[in-house]
Amino acid sequence: MSDAGSLQALVQALRRLPGVGVKSAQRMAYHLLQHDRPGAQVLAQALQQACEHLGHCERCHTFSEQALCAICRDGERDATRLCVVETPADQAAMERTGAFSGLYFVLMGRLSPLDGVGPADIGMQQLLQRAADGVVQEVILATSFTAEGEATAHALSQALRRAGVRVTRLARGVPVGSELEYVDLGTIAHALADRR
Amino acid sequence: MSDAGSLQALVQALRRLPGVGVKSAQRMAYHLLQHDRPGAQVLAQALQQACEHLGHCERCHTFSEQALCAICRDGERDATRLCVVETPADQAAMERTGAFSGLYFVLMGRLSPLDGVGPADIGMQQLLQRAADGVVQEVILATSFTAEGEATAHALSQALRRAGVRVTRLARGVPVGSELEYVDLGTIAHALADRR
Repeated sequence: MSDAGSLQALVQALRRLPGVGVKSAQRMAYHLLQHDRPGAQVLAQALQQACEHLGHCERCHTFSEQALCAICRDGERDATRLCVVETPADQAAMERTGAFSGLYFVLMGRLSPLDGVGPADIGMQQLLQRAADGVVQEVILATSFTAEGEATAHALSQALRRAGVRVTRLARGVPVGSELEYVDLGTIAHALADRR
Repeated sequence: MSDAGSLQALVQALRRLPGVGVKSAQRMAYHLLQHDRPGAQVLAQALQQACEHLGHCERCHTFSEQALCAICRDGERDATRLCVVETPADQAAMERTGAFSGLYFVLMGRLSPLDGVGPADIGMQQLLQRAADGVVQEVILATSFTAEGEATAHALSQALRRAGVRVTRLARGVPVGSELEYVDLGTIAHALADRR
């Protein structure tokens, strides 16, 4: 393994990927070098292209190659509803439902004081400005239902309500297709409290 | 997610890594773009460097930046013992034991007819030539103790014995530190048969 500095460098670089340890990084490096060198080239180029071209949409902060992303540019969308999500992946999930035709605000993170992520990092000020622009009538908080997601939703809803904006939160309840017996108790309790 | 072609391209490229599906690839892409752009650059460069500089050692077939790898160039090693392993990772494990001072032959794979990997792909001919060079006195088969590794060892040992080379195989037995109660029966049976 000595005399292969560029192999070691590749293994080290692959370890920077989330969820990849030494063994996985080695396996990835061997696989690319032995069986898929074109794949390695494609990946190298894709990384460089993405770093060069991808910035953030000025309005919603999601990843975009242009100043405004395609959704923000789309005049057909309902600008009175603003859905707040944590990540572009969450935004994509929301889009796939086909149930929402409004616009988005992507926090690109969540409040997490322990990790040093504060209101400025999730663009809270921009969100407040945007929500108070006179067009937005409802802000739908669609952050995760985890401790940090809930804390973020709580902080945002307080600030938004203080600014006089109507704020809603995605409903908590029993997931579609699940049997009650196997649903956790917290979820059942919430579903009972929010029954309609 | 539309209007982000280079993001899609990056996710697709990351999926070529072994063990990485859509969700992991997305998570990796978001992580690199949002939190570690320098890491993305480093990875892109490491991939290109490795593809450019890494070839195979002429003698032992492991990854090497030069015609001969460091181990093959090392005059101190015992050239009479040749250890056959499947991958550079296996070679590295063997080196870490510090118990072997001979040379290696790295198959860069294993016989696997179902995947179209035949004797030519693991360099069987080169191994036979090397083993018959008059210097090598013993070939130690250190392929994996899996079905394919065993089949590879069997095929190699038949060919090598036919050529009059002394062939040995790593011992099968109870792993160091294990309690007999929890060792699988096949291993105990082998350990009993190979008792010394």
